[in-house]
Amino acid sequence: MKYPPSLVSLIRELSRLPGIGPKSAQRLAFHLFDQPREDIERLAQALLEAKSELHTCPVCFNITDHDLCDVCADPLRDQQLLCVVEEPGDVIAIERSGEYNGLYHVLHGVISPMNGVGPEQLYIKPLLPRLQPNMEVILATGTTVEGEATAMYLQRLIEPLGATVSRIAYGLPVGGALEYADEVTLGRAMMGRQKISQ
Amino acid sequence: MKYPPSLVSLIRELSRLPGIGPKSAQRLAFHLFDQPREDIERLAQALLEAKSELHTCPVCFNITDHDLCDVCADPLRDQQLLCVVEEPGDVIAIERSGEYNGLYHVLHGVISPMNGVGPEQLYIKPLLPRLQPNMEVILATGTTVEGEATAMYLQRLIEPLGATVSRIAYGLPVGGALEYADEVTLGRAMMGRQKISQ
Repeated sequence: MKYPPSLVSLIRELSRLPGIGPKSAQRLAFHLFDQPREDIERLAQALLEAKSELHTCPVCFNITDHDLCDVCADPLRDQQLLCVVEEPGDVIAIERSGEYNGLYHVLHGVISPMNGVGPEQLYIKPLLPRLQPNMEVILATGTTVEGEATAMYLQRLIEPLGATVSRIAYGLPVGGALEYADEVTLGRAMMGRQKISQ
Repeated sequence: MKYPPSLVSLIRELSRLPGIGPKSAQRLAFHLFDQPREDIERLAQALLEAKSELHTCPVCFNITDHDLCDVCADPLRDQQLLCVVEEPGDVIAIERSGEYNGLYHVLHGVISPMNGVGPEQLYIKPLLPRLQPNMEVILATGTTVEGEATAMYLQRLIEPLGATVSRIAYGLPVGGALEYADEVTLGRAMMGRQKISQ
């Protein structure tokens, strides 16, 4: 016996999603089969609507459903601070921290020669005209090898243009015990220590 | 700044899928945003088609797009062998082994009081009229606590009706080294040892 063709194509489409292999796709398909028709229709509808309504902001390349994203359209944000991140999800994460009131620039990836991603595949070129001499550019790419390499690449590109370049701090996660921290993080946390005496 | 509403509803719908939490749903949504429109439409289409074309076989409750599933419609299958499994995916897994030529019965779950699933939520009632006195019923539910409990429940239900009841064998997975097997499996494999001398 074989799978019915419509089940095969559903499994194939699901297994194209990141982090979902053939086994998970099969499990998802059987789960979806057990759901009421309305739920399936709502999922399909959400997929199509998201695709037709969302696009990248032409200035910072964050995801938005307006002409400009909320941050770029907000005149109250600090125009002298520019935070460069890898993905749109990073913008949300930083916004949630409530510690930042500047602008963003979303690269949509990191430089990763192993995966065939060079600087020209990222939104690095449109970053340059946004820079002003007295601006601070915070490089907030991940602390992975690729994230570090991308930050270093951007630093070399941006510094000659006169902007101040900084990197988000390394250190212990808040609420973390020292014994669970890896030695590299702990070393960076020691190096980045800050005076608290008045 | 907030997520656009269409992104929020896509993330909400994706996070309703099993094994996909809010973080994975967000990652999936951003991934889907980067995909070409045709891919999204194909996924939405596959969801809707699978839902409209697929249904359970009225005899064995396997998933099918015909009136009867391929196994039930095949007169060459051994009508005296009936294998009871938890999910439609299990039928495919057993078929792939090529070691079985009988019929199936899909319960669509296991008895699990913790999750509020009792025998009446499963397709156990329609199993009984299928039983014949000289039939062998192979209980092939999982070897989890729930799978074992369901097998035991079915055994007590079926044996008085005169059918022979068997359980799939416990033992080492093929290609597995003894040192990696857990002690319960190893104990069961020893108990289930078979003579190979002629």
